[in-house]
Amino acid sequence: MLPFLRKGFLPKDQKLFVNKINKVTGLAPKNIPVYILAFTHSSFLNLEDSNSDSNERLEFLGDAILDSVVAELLFKKFPFKNEGFLTEMRSRLVKRDTLNMIAEKIGLRELVSTGKGNVNNGSKSILGNALEALIGAVFLDYGYDKTKKFIDNRLVKPFIDIEELISTTDNYKSLILEWADKNNRKVYFDIVKIVKHKSYSDFTAQVRVNEKIKGKGVGRSKKKAEQVAAADACQKLKIKVG
Amino acid sequence: MLPFLRKGFLPKDQKLFVNKINKVTGLAPKNIPVYILAFTHSSFLNLEDSNSDSNERLEFLGDAILDSVVAELLFKKFPFKNEGFLTEMRSRLVKRDTLNMIAEKIGLRELVSTGKGNVNNGSKSILGNALEALIGAVFLDYGYDKTKKFIDNRLVKPFIDIEELISTTDNYKSLILEWADKNNRKVYFDIVKIVKHKSYSDFTAQVRVNEKIKGKGVGRSKKKAEQVAAADACQKLKIKVG
Repeated sequence: MLPFLRKGFLPKDQKLFVNKINKVTGLAPKNIPVYILAFTHSSFLNLEDSNSDSNERLEFLGDAILDSVVAELLFKKFPFKNEGFLTEMRSRLVKRDTLNMIAEKIGLRELVSTGKGNVNNGSKSILGNALEALIGAVFLDYGYDKTKKFIDNRLVKPFIDIEELISTTDNYKSLILEWADKNNRKVYFDIVKIVKHKSYSDFTAQVRVNEKIKGKGVGRSKKKAEQVAAADACQKLKIKVG
Repeated sequence: MLPFLRKGFLPKDQKLFVNKINKVTGLAPKNIPVYILAFTHSSFLNLEDSNSDSNERLEFLGDAILDSVVAELLFKKFPFKNEGFLTEMRSRLVKRDTLNMIAEKIGLRELVSTGKGNVNNGSKSILGNALEALIGAVFLDYGYDKTKKFIDNRLVKPFIDIEELISTTDNYKSLILEWADKNNRKVYFDIVKIVKHKSYSDFTAQVRVNEKIKGKGVGRSKKKAEQVAAADACQKLKIKVG
């Protein structure tokens, strides 16, 4: 943690902080207090008062902006994919573990102020939350379009392999079939339930391995339900990619 | 439904459509096909193929943009409210019923093309979905800032009373206490479970009315849990505001 965040600001500390933010975002901070707020974890304030100025409000804002930007990026990158695919890809892209990993890699650990001193490994989600708060701060300071560029160029492109995200999504069924072939098991997929709604249906699939049910899953198509069920079975049977 | 959406475009039909969109959004459509897509429900296409061009992809995009814009509006409108409040307000503001109501009032019914002819009352959510798709279309055509103005000036301000949304949220506990006073019942709130996570806790509250448990609720503060439990009890006991 940068020490000035505890002691109050000295001009040279502020310069250090501003340089660091500039390096991380590629944008020179204009509204500096909002960035300071982004790195102020509630535990640092030691206040029960939920209205106190921690970064949680910025996290709320940044989370929404991140979801939008990722929605837009995926919408434009995959013009022929349906909304189920886009939803699934987004949830994989913005999941907690990924945000924590990115926050760590861009160096947010030294910026986060917590009441417990440095952020230890047990509180990794503080880093992901700080990243969301930083996104909120950039958005307030620079608006949507520059925040989109920051997210795409500094967070997504350098750290996320979207093609890999897709392949790990789509391959559960073939993964379990390959595994079964190698290990001499018999695998069957059954659609065991269909619930019809006005404009879509929910399908429930199950996976049987040597006549025992090993996975279940629900989806808006048979294929999707089978994939979810296959993912469930892969987890239970500890089958992994590669 | 505008008839040309079934028959293909004639120049004068297109003009009618463009005028209608202009009236609804306050913005002259530039990318006209994207607005047409926004009003093309999948049932109109009669295709099982999930990759076909229905408005569902635009709905995905518009839903995300709407969430962001509402997050930003609430963030700025309530500078002293915590993220729990903001989250709750947003979910009340963008809930399905509200979107359907707004879509109806701004006249989207006549624009939506479905395979079943006009949208009947049984498929109201088609209207809310079309509104999300329209937001997606405006975003692609005009970007974030103009979409924000469209949402704020044309969808939120004319149709949503945010102060009323707040009052209906916070009053369940006092509502049940008033009711108990009037009807000579004894009401108690108990916190029956606390699950501690890294950076927050989940509280479970119950409501007892004359020693019978009438409601349960979970929240990230005791107060929130009690409100959720009170809302549950109000529903079971058919206690209503006013």
